[in-house]
Amino acid sequence: MEPEEFRKYGHEVVDWIADYLADPAKHPVLSRVQPGDIARRLPPLPPATSEPMSRILEDFEKIILPGITHWNHPGFMAYFSITGSAPGILGEMLSAALNVNGMLWRTSPAATELEEVVLDWLRTMLGLPDSFKGVITDTASVSSLVAIAAAREHLHRNIRERGMSGRSDLPPLRLYCSEHAHSSIEKGAITLGIGHEGVRKIASDESFCMRADLLAATIVEDRKQGFLPFCVVATVGTTSTTSIDPVPAIAEICRHENLWLHVDGAYGGVSGLVPELRHHLDGCAESHSLVVNPHKWLFTPIDCSVLYTRRTDILRQAFSLVPEYLKTADANVTNYMDWGVQLGRRFRSLKLWFVIRSFGVDGLAANIREHCRLANMFASWVKADPAYELLAPVPFSVACFRFHPAGVNDEQELERLNSRILDTVNASGKVFLSHTKLNGRYTLRVAIGNLATTEEHVRSAWEQVRSAAKQ
Amino acid sequence: MEPEEFRKYGHEVVDWIADYLADPAKHPVLSRVQPGDIARRLPPLPPATSEPMSRILEDFEKIILPGITHWNHPGFMAYFSITGSAPGILGEMLSAALNVNGMLWRTSPAATELEEVVLDWLRTMLGLPDSFKGVITDTASVSSLVAIAAAREHLHRNIRERGMSGRSDLPPLRLYCSEHAHSSIEKGAITLGIGHEGVRKIASDESFCMRADLLAATIVEDRKQGFLPFCVVATVGTTSTTSIDPVPAIAEICRHENLWLHVDGAYGGVSGLVPELRHHLDGCAESHSLVVNPHKWLFTPIDCSVLYTRRTDILRQAFSLVPEYLKTADANVTNYMDWGVQLGRRFRSLKLWFVIRSFGVDGLAANIREHCRLANMFASWVKADPAYELLAPVPFSVACFRFHPAGVNDEQELERLNSRILDTVNASGKVFLSHTKLNGRYTLRVAIGNLATTEEHVRSAWEQVRSAAKQ
Repeated sequence: MEPEEFRKYGHEVVDWIADYLADPAKHPVLSRVQPGDIARRLPPLPPATSEPMSRILEDFEKIILPGITHWNHPGFMAYFSITGSAPGILGEMLSAALNVNGMLWRTSPAATELEEVVLDWLRTMLGLPDSFKGVITDTASVSSLVAIAAAREHLHRNIRERGMSGRSDLPPLRLYCSEHAHSSIEKGAITLGIGHEGVRKIASDESFCMRADLLAATIVEDRKQGFLPFCVVATVGTTSTTSIDPVPAIAEICRHENLWLHVDGAYGGVSGLVPELRHHLDGCAESHSLVVNPHKWLFTPIDCSVLYTRRTDILRQAFSLVPEYLKTADANVTNYMDWGVQLGRRFRSLKLWFVIRSFGVDGLAANIREHCRLANMFASWVKADPAYELLAPVPFSVACFRFHPAGVNDEQELERLNSRILDTVNASGKVFLSHTKLNGRYTLRVAIGNLATTEEHVRSAWEQVRSAAKQ
Repeated sequence: MEPEEFRKYGHEVVDWIADYLADPAKHPVLSRVQPGDIARRLPPLPPATSEPMSRILEDFEKIILPGITHWNHPGFMAYFSITGSAPGILGEMLSAALNVNGMLWRTSPAATELEEVVLDWLRTMLGLPDSFKGVITDTASVSSLVAIAAAREHLHRNIRERGMSGRSDLPPLRLYCSEHAHSSIEKGAITLGIGHEGVRKIASDESFCMRADLLAATIVEDRKQGFLPFCVVATVGTTSTTSIDPVPAIAEICRHENLWLHVDGAYGGVSGLVPELRHHLDGCAESHSLVVNPHKWLFTPIDCSVLYTRRTDILRQAFSLVPEYLKTADANVTNYMDWGVQLGRRFRSLKLWFVIRSFGVDGLAANIREHCRLANMFASWVKADPAYELLAPVPFSVACFRFHPAGVNDEQELERLNSRILDTVNASGKVFLSHTKLNGRYTLRVAIGNLATTEEHVRSAWEQVRSAAKQ
């Protein structure tokens, strides 16, 4: 495709995007297609010869769009609701055009240095000390895996060199997290050879926060039994309820036990930039590593996860591997390939820079604050209605609740009722909610996080729920 | 930013990109900034309030652009040269706008089903059997890590559950690859707890291809010594020379030894779609997994790596982990989060679909063929000049060579000469080459892979080298 043809279709695509962003609610939020519907409409074999872009774009609208669940829809309140904001999209366009692989400083000095500067901006925005240095990865799954690998290296048991199996000098490793930690922590540990059994899930209190007393006791007990504790993962904003583990107490335990403390703030970490919420990051300055995802609640298009650590020495020790063909003479530079699993790296700091500058710190904070207000407003409606139950505190922008009519106390019956409400609401095309389970209770979640979501949409979600419950 | 403002700046950005793509050679290919130059020009703190997009775009041109190494430049012939083609950029724009996280089928059925269909297209294009199913990851580093993790699971030693350390029933694991395998294989093994020592590098023959006889002997020897072989990684297109390991012979050994065979075709795998090159994939149909990177030599913007496997059962066994909050009732669907490390997933199949349709299979093949022709032409000039040495066969689009004037036979002196040639050429701003070492010899590489690169650019690269050698 010649540049002039790109220009023509680029303008078309920009117009399409602008129209789409102007009214994402014109599509049903949850796609209504059935399994196989999209695949069936696509030819089973690729075209032998070039097809015109006009036809490809037509097919995008006709075939692909009906199969999209619209994460941009103001009624998207499932999982964690996110926004790929317009400034972020502009940044992505330029990244795609430059097509930089920022594996080494020299393969685009600006990609590396912008990443360093923007992550330093974000660090100050979150109130973390300047001993923390950051690196962008694709997802929190990878950020946490990398952090746990660093924790393993921090044992100084020569695991990088000798591996983990067949060693009489290496006991089974133990990682600790709350029962509400994200599944990516388990997956990371499994991947790293720690094993499912190596992940000790610590029970939480009635607010779904890790019980530090149980953590301390479990570590002592494990050591007695010959296990090798090496890492604690605390969460600021768990996935089910956004609960916040008691990081200061956990950090104290880690200090005492000489364990690596990783904080999963993939969702909740950004609250540090809102003055009245920053206390939720108390203790995080003492962590060894912390992940926060701008693609979650900082209006940056997916993917963009940030891993901070004050032990870059350990991180590099765990991961740096420089074959001859990647050696350079550049001194005093960061080669981000040394900081993790992936060699190839998109130029992701560009979109984050666009977002932070375009919103300004105050603008970002105002939006996060508003999302918290909306979730708390929803929670207040739940609390005011005797047929409903609020099932968890609302520290951030997610409310957990269920329909609980008088007289119905059988858990299975309540699950049936609420899952039917969920299906009905989600079939409306106006709202998309998801669920979880809390202490065995089937729980509905309303997650606010899209910039287009207003009080009216939240009110409509509540009405959808109540009307579904009546049916 | 309001949609109308996005429209305005979106058009500006498209015009910028079109102009950029029309003449990427107007910039020096290798950025000329010094370490710290970019960071110094950026404010140390983020703006408190919103900045206008016009200023951000101005700074992009003024501050960022000089720090870009232009992977789009026709003179970019370092590492593996790549292209983020115009159709791919259009696809990226739409992906950024939709901002889909395709972790589950229901979070955008079209993202999952398009991925399935397009990867099936690519599979047929490469001539792989339909038992192979694909998944898109970000990088070959991750694709190979996931494949090696599946190989580990394939041992059926309960490593997922019990982990690797502290087990008297689990010997040290052994993975085999050629001494020319990519560093990501070692890094993956280290990450997975196999350890550096667990990676046995098999010597290669005079063409830099793994010696199957040594592989077989090493496995037998390792078993005798109590090690647990589990995986062989063969490479189709190694990074230094693009050599091709003897996959049929290696597959035979893997069958006999019941080992998982992973093929790293990150670069060379796409050759399967060129009829006269397809034989380079002989034996790959017998592999358990194979990685190929559309973002390397299939003109797709970074990042887009594809992992194929005919053992999706093992892959899911290694990685599937479904917490309550991600459970859905959707039956008979693929939830790609079950196929690897990462939960979050960009909608990457869209750009690949755009690329394949816009080029057509024949168009893709023609470009790959042309790149091979250009590299072989360069090699013929090297061979014709007695002051130069061709250091490896040229099966694909990379030529390895060095300046070797009569009478100079000291390796250190030759390294000094050639590394000086490299620096001089790279300082020209017209060509960017990289180096490697082959049997201790410092080697220059010319890697062709950008769509804008023509015979004239390759000729100019040769002239740059010769003129630098004369100095």
